Amino acid sequence: MNYSAADPKFVADLAALLPPDSLRNPEPRYLEESRGRFLGGGGVLALPRSVDEVSIIMRTCHAAGVPVVPYGGGTGLVGGQIMPGHAQPVILSLERMSAIRSINGASNVIVAEAGCILADVQAAADAEGRLFPLSLAAQGTARIGGNLSTNAGGLNVLRYGNARDLCLGLEVVLPNGEIWHGLSELRKDNTGYDLKNLMIGAEGTLGVITAASLKLFSKPVAHETAFLVVPDPEAAIGLLALARAQLGEAVSAFELIHSRSLEFLSEAFPDLRQPFEERPEWSVLMEVGLSKALVGQDVLEVLFGEALERELVTDGVVASSEGQRQAFWSLRETIPAANKIVGSISSHDVSIPIERIPAFIEKGTQAVAAFEGLRVNCFGHLGDGNLHFNVFPPAGENKSDYSHLQSEVKVAVHDVVHEFGGSFSAEHGVGRLKVDDLARYGDPVKLAMMRAIKNTIDPKGIMNPGAMFSN
Amino acid sequence: MNYSAADPKFVADLAALLPPDSLRNPEPRYLEESRGRFLGGGGVLALPRSVDEVSIIMRTCHAAGVPVVPYGGGTGLVGGQIMPGHAQPVILSLERMSAIRSINGASNVIVAEAGCILADVQAAADAEGRLFPLSLAAQGTARIGGNLSTNAGGLNVLRYGNARDLCLGLEVVLPNGEIWHGLSELRKDNTGYDLKNLMIGAEGTLGVITAASLKLFSKPVAHETAFLVVPDPEAAIGLLALARAQLGEAVSAFELIHSRSLEFLSEAFPDLRQPFEERPEWSVLMEVGLSKALVGQDVLEVLFGEALERELVTDGVVASSEGQRQAFWSLRETIPAANKIVGSISSHDVSIPIERIPAFIEKGTQAVAAFEGLRVNCFGHLGDGNLHFNVFPPAGENKSDYSHLQSEVKVAVHDVVHEFGGSFSAEHGVGRLKVDDLARYGDPVKLAMMRAIKNTIDPKGIMNPGAMFSN
Repeated sequence: MNYSAADPKFVADLAALLPPDSLRNPEPRYLEESRGRFLGGGGVLALPRSVDEVSIIMRTCHAAGVPVVPYGGGTGLVGGQIMPGHAQPVILSLERMSAIRSINGASNVIVAEAGCILADVQAAADAEGRLFPLSLAAQGTARIGGNLSTNAGGLNVLRYGNARDLCLGLEVVLPNGEIWHGLSELRKDNTGYDLKNLMIGAEGTLGVITAASLKLFSKPVAHETAFLVVPDPEAAIGLLALARAQLGEAVSAFELIHSRSLEFLSEAFPDLRQPFEERPEWSVLMEVGLSKALVGQDVLEVLFGEALERELVTDGVVASSEGQRQAFWSLRETIPAANKIVGSISSHDVSIPIERIPAFIEKGTQAVAAFEGLRVNCFGHLGDGNLHFNVFPPAGENKSDYSHLQSEVKVAVHDVVHEFGGSFSAEHGVGRLKVDDLARYGDPVKLAMMRAIKNTIDPKGIMNPGAMFSN
Repeated sequence: MNYSAADPKFVADLAALLPPDSLRNPEPRYLEESRGRFLGGGGVLALPRSVDEVSIIMRTCHAAGVPVVPYGGGTGLVGGQIMPGHAQPVILSLERMSAIRSINGASNVIVAEAGCILADVQAAADAEGRLFPLSLAAQGTARIGGNLSTNAGGLNVLRYGNARDLCLGLEVVLPNGEIWHGLSELRKDNTGYDLKNLMIGAEGTLGVITAASLKLFSKPVAHETAFLVVPDPEAAIGLLALARAQLGEAVSAFELIHSRSLEFLSEAFPDLRQPFEERPEWSVLMEVGLSKALVGQDVLEVLFGEALERELVTDGVVASSEGQRQAFWSLRETIPAANKIVGSISSHDVSIPIERIPAFIEKGTQAVAAFEGLRVNCFGHLGDGNLHFNVFPPAGENKSDYSHLQSEVKVAVHDVVHEFGGSFSAEHGVGRLKVDDLARYGDPVKLAMMRAIKNTIDPKGIMNPGAMFSN
């Protein structure tokens, strides 16, 4: 598809419609992404301060056929925020729309503009004595508009759901500049099609999210956290079921960790203390968030005792202080950094129906074993069925000697995922990185419907071209 | 719009493509709905046994331009299941597609065909030691496909969400007969647009849901239920916040009841025992579902004590037996029947941002008071902000003497709802009954997007014409 460029004339015309200082050349950080796979070609950076300014920008781009790349915190992992090549798009950053418009502890709603940094939304909720539970590694940089556009997940999905589940309403600017004022605060509203959920996870290809009304929750009064050794993934699944029978929705995180993660952590961060002398092959890091009625009951000790009896665990440590709890989480949260230092050949963010996970781990490991000597690091949000199943070179060797295998390895792993009824992108989205995967594994009728909807809402195809669909 | 009719030739042609006994004249019950507001004109009843047969029917209707009315249990309250007038549609009943295709307690997923009666889905989950929490008065007759098409709510939305929140994936036949195989069992899957949620709540206007994968939950080990007297709605909201701080998500139902409900129950069902000697002006029926760790702690007694101290309640009874618990719920669930016997002029199913409910009740009551002598019965799912705010004739008089006021009263109430940022249809949907309301109160940009999507997915406009949009 041929696009117009945001050339000097276009930029001048657009600038005349906006306050001064609304447009400038993009700094390098707007043209790069963390894994170095995509590099933006250029364009003009737009920094609107209000939904009306976003509307003006979109209307102008629409009329001229200039592509638009909506930009949140730039922390996306699938190249959704970068338009490479010769195109000169408008990079539409929402960073100046960072107001908390309102917050109400009684009805448990916060309304935040799309440019709010996720950590700031969390802080605003906390100051009101409430919890906004979306929690992920990049939260100090990611912006809520981007979190919604990608339906971000993170650590607390098990209990609170992902971005989609946390959103009550949206304010959206459509590709032609029209504004949909959908900032409902209602929990029940059956008055028409669910366009909110069409926009969430659309990765900037259908419109620009400018504000959102989000759910708040009671803050747990206390937490209990435990690092437990399990005999195998099957037992981990049984342990989760037992935990839920005992504690209901109090179970807020349940992470599966293979010994390879602990090995890489040893290698890359030898000063980070690990909970077990001998590295367990499989371990679980779990956390419960307690309401008042459950405080002081040592619920995880009780659970541990029951789990031991049923041979679902063989060893474990319940954190006895906040410091120890933070140390456990620090280990888990440092795994991606350790992986980066070791250097992966191919990283995967997949989900599998939970009861099929043990068989998937087996078959996936076999598929990787076909590539001689490659190692697997399997860890992730077991409670959601979401595993990172990442592939590394043999011990002591460098990923650059194996990068030629990246594509084959990826297809091998994703083919097994697909065979098991799973998803090739549990959390990270499609972006530009996984367009081929979507074409390969996506249901053809669904893909046709997606294209038809895209063509209806964005007939000029200016919204983030190259993301989600091939051009 | 002009539609072809399912005339004898069409019926014969379609019959030739299907097994014998797939088509017949519809019995009266397929042409009627419970409030007697819509009467079907006729048509042919189709009873497919498989998604492939549904596909054949849709393809044939699509080619011929014959309208289709998808039919679940027929319990919908907004005329979505009835096509009145001269049209001769295909009434597409899913009742023969009533298989539970699979159930898995470990991953907490059940896959049910659209024609499964809701109570049967609940029973299948129960037999597997799990809970399918969608629970509403009509559950013995409603079918899950209809529940999803209308995004049904019910008593447990506070804790478990509505039909939308309970659905992981769908199998859908599109207007042109294509089948979307979307029966995912995954809890995290960011691979494209959320078409599932487009179909849910679309009320049969975009496609035919033929099966769904649904979430299961741990069964609470025990319940505690209490009927509490509150000084006013404001206190009820405070009580809910206190309950959540104490008990987290264990709070599974929280119903507000005005004395008028108890008065009507006295009138219509004098043998139904009521919990309080003197009818309280405002009361709350609340329930908690306890996981093991919370059993035997008399959590509601503890809550009651704290609430008393904070003057959020003035009196109350905690059910001391299962029988008493059932009696409390029986009272609440009989309110609609009592209302029907007294005879309402206009019934409303609205939602309001929770913190605005006290002010809404005041202003809504004033608006009704402008119509001399009319009485309001206000009750409902306070925790979700969903109130039934129903209007009745003066005591001893008959609704038929006031039916001429129905439209004015409705607009008066809905205008106040709209002013308070609420919804004119919290649960029941739009159907044919509330098409005018949607046109009046719906955001114009949203409505335009809806029509564009409708025209894209159903270009011939054969899916449930007259529902959701005026023709």
